[in-house]
Amino acid sequence: MKTKKYFLFTKKNNLSNKNNIIHELMIKGGFIRKLCSGIFILLPNALKVINNIVNIIKNEMFKIGGLEIQMPVITPFSLWNKGGRFYNYDKELYKFYDRNNKMFLLSPTNEEIITEFFFRENLLLSGYPYIFYQFNNKFRDEIRIKSNLIRCKEFIMKDAYSFHTNLKCLDNTYLNILNTYLNIFKIIGLNVCYKKAKCGKIGGILSHEFHFISKYGENKLNIDKFNYLNILNLKFNNFNFKMFKKFKCLYFNINKIDKFIIKNLNNFIRTYIIKIYLINKKNIFIILLINNYKSIDLIKIKNLYPLSNKIKILNKKYIFKKFKILDIFLGPFGLNYRIIADCSLINYINFIIGSNINNYLFINVNWKKHLNIVTFLDISKNFSLYIKKFNKNINIIKKKSIEVAHIFKLLDKYSLNYKKNNNINKILMGCYGIGIYRIFFSVIEQYSYNNKIILPLSISSFKLGIIPINLYNNKNVYNISYKIYKFLIKKKIDVLIENRNIYFGEILNDFELIGIPNFLIISNNLLLLNILEFRDRINNLTQFIRVNEIFNFLFRKYKN
Amino acid sequence: MKTKKYFLFTKKNNLSNKNNIIHELMIKGGFIRKLCSGIFILLPNALKVINNIVNIIKNEMFKIGGLEIQMPVITPFSLWNKGGRFYNYDKELYKFYDRNNKMFLLSPTNEEIITEFFFRENLLLSGYPYIFYQFNNKFRDEIRIKSNLIRCKEFIMKDAYSFHTNLKCLDNTYLNILNTYLNIFKIIGLNVCYKKAKCGKIGGILSHEFHFISKYGENKLNIDKFNYLNILNLKFNNFNFKMFKKFKCLYFNINKIDKFIIKNLNNFIRTYIIKIYLINKKNIFIILLINNYKSIDLIKIKNLYPLSNKIKILNKKYIFKKFKILDIFLGPFGLNYRIIADCSLINYINFIIGSNINNYLFINVNWKKHLNIVTFLDISKNFSLYIKKFNKNINIIKKKSIEVAHIFKLLDKYSLNYKKNNNINKILMGCYGIGIYRIFFSVIEQYSYNNKIILPLSISSFKLGIIPINLYNNKNVYNISYKIYKFLIKKKIDVLIENRNIYFGEILNDFELIGIPNFLIISNNLLLLNILEFRDRINNLTQFIRVNEIFNFLFRKYKN
Repeated sequence: MKTKKYFLFTKKNNLSNKNNIIHELMIKGGFIRKLCSGIFILLPNALKVINNIVNIIKNEMFKIGGLEIQMPVITPFSLWNKGGRFYNYDKELYKFYDRNNKMFLLSPTNEEIITEFFFRENLLLSGYPYIFYQFNNKFRDEIRIKSNLIRCKEFIMKDAYSFHTNLKCLDNTYLNILNTYLNIFKIIGLNVCYKKAKCGKIGGILSHEFHFISKYGENKLNIDKFNYLNILNLKFNNFNFKMFKKFKCLYFNINKIDKFIIKNLNNFIRTYIIKIYLINKKNIFIILLINNYKSIDLIKIKNLYPLSNKIKILNKKYIFKKFKILDIFLGPFGLNYRIIADCSLINYINFIIGSNINNYLFINVNWKKHLNIVTFLDISKNFSLYIKKFNKNINIIKKKSIEVAHIFKLLDKYSLNYKKNNNINKILMGCYGIGIYRIFFSVIEQYSYNNKIILPLSISSFKLGIIPINLYNNKNVYNISYKIYKFLIKKKIDVLIENRNIYFGEILNDFELIGIPNFLIISNNLLLLNILEFRDRINNLTQFIRVNEIFNFLFRKYKN
Repeated sequence: MKTKKYFLFTKKNNLSNKNNIIHELMIKGGFIRKLCSGIFILLPNALKVINNIVNIIKNEMFKIGGLEIQMPVITPFSLWNKGGRFYNYDKELYKFYDRNNKMFLLSPTNEEIITEFFFRENLLLSGYPYIFYQFNNKFRDEIRIKSNLIRCKEFIMKDAYSFHTNLKCLDNTYLNILNTYLNIFKIIGLNVCYKKAKCGKIGGILSHEFHFISKYGENKLNIDKFNYLNILNLKFNNFNFKMFKKFKCLYFNINKIDKFIIKNLNNFIRTYIIKIYLINKKNIFIILLINNYKSIDLIKIKNLYPLSNKIKILNKKYIFKKFKILDIFLGPFGLNYRIIADCSLINYINFIIGSNINNYLFINVNWKKHLNIVTFLDISKNFSLYIKKFNKNINIIKKKSIEVAHIFKLLDKYSLNYKKNNNINKILMGCYGIGIYRIFFSVIEQYSYNNKIILPLSISSFKLGIIPINLYNNKNVYNISYKIYKFLIKKKIDVLIENRNIYFGEILNDFELIGIPNFLIISNNLLLLNILEFRDRINNLTQFIRVNEIFNFLFRKYKN
């Protein structure tokens, strides 16, 4: 696209609502406009991002045999009445009468319709699940309307429903979809964790929520209650990371070390090594990382290794004997053992950890950047006691989060009211929602930096922004810019070229606001040196590429 | 896709509702299901077709600078009240109150929201139009609900809106969009004609409707009132066409000819040649085709050629002198003149026309097949008199049709209530709707044949259906089938392969019902001869392709 034809809708004014910078950025970046409380208009930038998210989900749902359908937005009341759910929702539902005085609802979720559909179809089931899904507008008459995409009256959701004749089949599909959702977040690049949750109004016997830990979240995530927590994709921006350093602290000055550690209590991660004696007589070592003020719960470890006979935390002496390292300097580096970190560590940045070099600690360490093969699990003892002891105000337990998806093992809650098929006694169901608006908001929160938006390549409206400097006054710049532009268009790579006659600063501002992750800057000065400037905003990297290598470079970068 | 993974939802039972066969076919073909009166569920087959239609429209809108946005489904009443349109619609609107007793509507159209948006944005206008469009669910509380996609309570529409500072800019955009819509129908392959229409509730000073002539239409199209009518794409199926024949009728037996012609009154097309004397002294000849019982309106012809001095219909004598043909046998073939046909002839099939060979008429002639460069215009005199004379029951004047699109030159009807910008006195608007459901229905009506659906390649869910015979019992069949399948998947061509273990007849039935336009049949018998069978259902053609040529053949066929 060319900026003369593709209107950006960016705004130049300062942020007016400092309470929710992400929402303000979405307005400044020309993604959304509020029509009235809880109701938004999506602009071209947003539609492109949403389409990309939708396509990622479609691809993944296809892999597990999902069938895309579309149910209507308006639902007859009679259907909701049948299952009795109407009265559970009541005030959250938008209700209206048609000209024949029949009552209708605006669907907030579609279990009723899909179940009605399924039983009318009289589909043959033979141990084989049916998975239906749709993208559709959903409606909720919320009490707590927020002026952002997290909680609105009308929103886009992808909901999926599965049907089964036996529990094993339902269990399999439930797990399949759980993994599919994790994979979707991984492909998008959104850091999401999941946990068991209550079934609530939707119902069923088991449910899992998927959360993005967010400053603007409405959920309070009790990290310790996680059964299993896993960060999918620790692709943070570098911007918040401080410089990684070796910190010298001589062991004989143990007091000084202690002071340093207590001062940095929330930032110090302790390393332990445990030895697991397995039933088959083979023993394994594992590295455990845990907050300095917590202790390891060996029962939880034992649950992870059901084949263990005995589990032992290696003591100071053993460690010194085996690794020649004083225990306080023990770290996860350079040892070829599996690393398990306590789930409460997941949001630590710029933390302090042992270096495996005596008399040195590493500071400003960050996940993924310095430690990337780590499993996050709940391995610590309930730590309320410790928190009291060290720091009353420590707020590690509760984290605000945005619920981006929720899945339910429904069993026969909705199918119970239908006539049974032939010999099949029960039709079991599951349902699975993903909030598209919430994903969109969360991605912007995760990647945005310094009041500018960065979108990951997976979903950005444009993969590359071409910024020619003095496009209309320099033939060389003009020719090479359009040559690259046409090359990318031909390869069907989404690219935006600046062809308005405006200043570099303005261009940069616009392109940064709409979240383009990569820029290619084409200026006469650089062309005289036969190079172009390529900026990777995600990794905060600038590269200079030779003109004759640029086509190969870009093609390789975007070919997928 | 493989049929084991892609559930077809086809039904085997006979058609139950013979009143609307197309609707029944859409149910049998697994496209739609009725949830309740006027409300439908779209199944995977339908979503694929609708996505293809949507993508064609997006592409064409992009070319004229259209910006895709998405407005909400629920609209505050206050906006509709502002322009006063609420009371015009009233009963057609679904209205409801939220928990704070604010009134909302389900939008049947979005002029109010887009105008509000536009003025809030305070966009700069400088002779340059803004064109916004969206695909969205629309809602109408219809009195006359039909049990099909033509008139329902909830439906998918693409609506577009344009904003201008001067009439010239609006005029240009209006014409641009009119042409874009014609182009969209042409790409889809839907035979659509358009005409001036009343502005009605939407308002404005000019409007055009786009119609598909349909047995199931609710509109009555008065063909003679057309200002201009043009069939975009005469891609009929061959199936209804009878064999083209030369019919011998000796001229001296004029009585017999007359009887024959009177008997076939509705099917006989008369050929005239007119001579136009132009102001620049150059004269031109034109062939006019007209119903046998009508006569040419020379004033209408003169309007078509404003530079003409005089227009003369060539008489019998002149024709015989110049062409050596008796006037009754005169036809449009083999003469190098422009051919203009009266617009009322557009739906003629298997008609009779002069052959340009004395003593012969051609019968079972069809547009496009035998006569393809024809312009359809209104050239006949008001013919009510003639109809009375010949045949009282002739019903050529009124044709039932489906309105598939409607565009409006609104001027300032909706923008009048907003504060004016700086020096700009008036903001002018246009609005432009296309009904996606109606296009879908119309395409099926146009192409379906013998209670089976054929969809054109432009929008079919799959371009090709691969039908292996005895897939699991013959290694050769299996290997070549999957080789072709994988080749097409790699080339990103939509293909469906049959891999259930069912009979050929069942496969054929399913594939025909879901409208796949091309089949590739792979059987051991043919493989022994080193060939495959390719069926083109649109043109009713069967080709046998050599195995080593099949990849090239398919790639060439589907590469666009």
